Amino acid sequence: MAAPTFYAVVAGVGSGTGASVAQLFAKSYPVALLARQESSWAPVADAITKAGGTAIGITTDAADPSSVDAAFARIAQDWPNAKLAAAVYNANAGFAYKSFLDLVPSDLNTSLGTAANGLFYFAQKTLPQLLAAVDAKPQHPPTLIVTGATAAIRGSAKFATFAAGKFAQRGITQSLAREFGPRGVHVAYTIIDGGIDTPWGKDRVVNGGVADGKISPEAIAENYWYLHTQHRSAFTQELDLRPFVEKF
Amino acid sequence: MAAPTFYAVVAGVGSGTGASVAQLFAKSYPVALLARQESSWAPVADAITKAGGTAIGITTDAADPSSVDAAFARIAQDWPNAKLAAAVYNANAGFAYKSFLDLVPSDLNTSLGTAANGLFYFAQKTLPQLLAAVDAKPQHPPTLIVTGATAAIRGSAKFATFAAGKFAQRGITQSLAREFGPRGVHVAYTIIDGGIDTPWGKDRVVNGGVADGKISPEAIAENYWYLHTQHRSAFTQELDLRPFVEKF
Amino acid sequence: MAAPTFYAVVAGVGSGTGASVAQLFAKSYPVALLARQESSWAPVADAITKAGGTAIGITTDAADPSSVDAAFARIAQDWPNAKLAAAVYNANAGFAYKSFLDLVPSDLNTSLGTAANGLFYFAQKTLPQLLAAVDAKPQHPPTLIVTGATAAIRGSAKFATFAAGKFAQRGITQSLAREFGPRGVHVAYTIIDGGIDTPWGKDRVVNGGVADGKISPEAIAENYWYLHTQHRSAFTQELDLRPFVEKF
Amino acid sequence: MAAPTFYAVVAGVGSGTGASVAQLFAKSYPVALLARQESSWAPVADAITKAGGTAIGITTDAADPSSVDAAFARIAQDWPNAKLAAAVYNANAGFAYKSFLDLVPSDLNTSLGTAANGLFYFAQKTLPQLLAAVDAKPQHPPTLIVTGATAAIRGSAKFATFAAGKFAQRGITQSLAREFGPRGVHVAYTIIDGGIDTPWGKDRVVNGGVADGKISPEAIAENYWYLHTQHRSAFTQELDLRPFVEKF
Repeated sequence: MAAPTFYAVVAGVGSGTGASVAQLFAKSYPVALLARQESSWAPVADAITKAGGTAIGITTDAADPSSVDAAFARIAQDWPNAKLAAAVYNANAGFAYKSFLDLVPSDLNTSLGTAANGLFYFAQKTLPQLLAAVDAKPQHPPTLIVTGATAAIRGSAKFATFAAGKFAQRGITQSLAREFGPRGVHVAYTIIDGGIDTPWGKDRVVNGGVADGKISPEAIAENYWYLHTQHRSAFTQELDLRPFVEKF
Repeated sequence: MAAPTFYAVVAGVGSGTGASVAQLFAKSYPVALLARQESSWAPVADAITKAGGTAIGITTDAADPSSVDAAFARIAQDWPNAKLAAAVYNANAGFAYKSFLDLVPSDLNTSLGTAANGLFYFAQKTLPQLLAAVDAKPQHPPTLIVTGATAAIRGSAKFATFAAGKFAQRGITQSLAREFGPRGVHVAYTIIDGGIDTPWGKDRVVNGGVADGKISPEAIAENYWYLHTQHRSAFTQELDLRPFVEKF
Repeated sequence: MAAPTFYAVVAGVGSGTGASVAQLFAKSYPVALLARQESSWAPVADAITKAGGTAIGITTDAADPSSVDAAFARIAQDWPNAKLAAAVYNANAGFAYKSFLDLVPSDLNTSLGTAANGLFYFAQKTLPQLLAAVDAKPQHPPTLIVTGATAAIRGSAKFATFAAGKFAQRGITQSLAREFGPRGVHVAYTIIDGGIDTPWGKDRVVNGGVADGKISPEAIAENYWYLHTQHRSAFTQELDLRPFVEKF
Repeated sequence: MAAPTFYAVVAGVGSGTGASVAQLFAKSYPVALLARQESSWAPVADAITKAGGTAIGITTDAADPSSVDAAFARIAQDWPNAKLAAAVYNANAGFAYKSFLDLVPSDLNTSLGTAANGLFYFAQKTLPQLLAAVDAKPQHPPTLIVTGATAAIRGSAKFATFAAGKFAQRGITQSLAREFGPRGVHVAYTIIDGGIDTPWGKDRVVNGGVADGKISPEAIAENYWYLHTQHRSAFTQELDLRPFVEKF
């Protein structure tokens, strides 16, 4: 296979947002799929391949810098001449919903490790490539999108460690947007404000079980693609997304 | 002409954002163009017609309820069976950049009159129609988009009256989003954070005159269209838009 | 009586916040009490006088510029040499809690008239005096405090007109803080986030009726006095206040 | 010495904010002083003792849970029957002002370690004591105050790691306020928005060198004390403080 000109990378590919984003971006770019477990990325890679796209899956712990190093080394090896068009950081560590006094230090480390440290490693790997892609005159501005949540703007009771991670992530992303925007890289943060309609959460009832009361992962993916295609004279830095029935 | 099934209305159609939004929405819907002066809407109506679309222009003072009444009566007369797919409130009164002590009460009234009162009249006319359109199973969720600015989230020195209007407008729009979102109407506010590349502002240098350092009205239009097409499980309430080089 | 050196003025003196603020500031300054009805300010003036303070009450419609003019003319006549130490804008028009489609234009005008226009008139009268007071080397920085509410930062469903007024007021106040802070005047906005324990609201149960579940007007007054006494190297621009049990 | 009834603890006692806060609180409570180095807390302890107060200094690394454990064990040993009236988390790790691509992972870990992890350990040690103090009917609501900065609400270019820490800290503090406020503990965050007038920063010119153009540590201390004394019907959750001349 000839090396693709541009590619995308998605960190945190499971059965929800990451999978949908990867599949949508795969209609335009070869996509590298990073996930902690092969069982997470393998079905997505298969789906992309069946649809005529190109994907490589790489088992990666986003919170471990050497694992992230290895992932990008693998990408460079497989697609040596590819420029990075879009990088999506969607890795999540789950969260502990507990009274603060029932939390243990590892709850905080787990949250920060993926949300803050993981984003840090991922951004350090991808931003140099995204800057290089600016010079290659891509169709769309090279883009870094980070998946946030309500907990990035609101520290609710019993969400202390989740909020810690998401707040930190939002702060980092804002800083990156302000530094790298003027250099041509679009850095955006999403505030996913609602339950996501994932395969594994079908039984969880939110918003009274009304149709479209959970966020469709495909709809999230369309929004990510839209962010990627925004004209550089009109970049969105922070995008809130919620079901029409969601209280906010 | 058979009455169109769905139509759009744009209040505040001049040579910048409003014109571009109207022309883009006109690719999908007949569009009613509201502007204070015929010289504002006439070229836009012409452009739409030449491109094969349908438009009616109605000279309207958005800050005058009887004028707004008359405008919607005219629309109802011309397109008696049309449902409202999208309403865009883009009317602006300009602003006084002055020390607070040099402002006069009419500066405040002018700002509030268009930003707050005008939006109020427009929303009272359009929301019942947008609710009715929900029942008509449109392709996209019926949408009300209001054009905001940085002054909606930041009261800068010497912008007291402009901020008053834009803050008020944002407050109203949030309230509408929370009331009418659950009923199926997408209500969104945009934070236009930067100079717009209007025909009449070509000589104004911003961001050092760099290419794409002003916001393209066509790019704003694409964003408005995108908001209109968002899936109802993933509505954006507030969209910031700024040039890649903008300080924020 | 010799004219006082410094005085305070409170607009919106009733039985709640305004009365408590006036009584507390009256321990340090003669206080001018502005209220729409004499029955509002008269008991407060009496209480101040009985406690050994000085007060004048002036029946004033804060939303009517000529009434505000007359009030300050009266103050200038009574206290010709007094400098203005502190001005508190606490006027409120009440609010309509209604579906947006049940509101009428006068609901909006009532809200904006007091929250935005009234503040505008009051600030135009008091800021020149506060600036003059800076030169008079007062004990505390001359201060303008505006009473806000949750509706200044959140447009809730069915609060469209109240939010319009409070958002506008917050925007104006921010702008004033940025313009007049560097000239030595402390301009602060308060976000009163909870029910106030007013005499007329004793029967209204909030937060389950728990002790201190409503905000004590005396506590608000202490906070206003504290804002007034802040050192100019450490001004607070926006102060949130809520009962310990309040959800937020 | 008889064990004091109530005490205060300040983590991060150097020559600026922490020292001033400790000295002011020492007028009302014995104060435990935590700092990484004895040379930081020793002069403060001396000053407090000379002024007639009581202080113990404990060399503590706020980012190290075992060091924090040891500090509180020491306090419990010295003041076995004391209740905790106020806890102030003022530990700071400094920050790296660098292009994101010049940062290394340890920059992030240093920032998070003190701002997020350190606060976590400190809050886990102090909140149970503060809750216990609620039952002891103290004069003022038991209080946890955390020192924040502009970087807690704005991720500026080249401040990625500092913003990460301060954002995380703000998220945690909000969560604690919402969980422990209803239980009677006042949890507040301060946004210190400006340069502080520390002994070691005398040569640094900010705001043109104007008098009071840097925040006085004594003024910060007064604000912290004020937060501690707020009535529980009117708690402030987040307090911004900036010099009158500061741009914001």
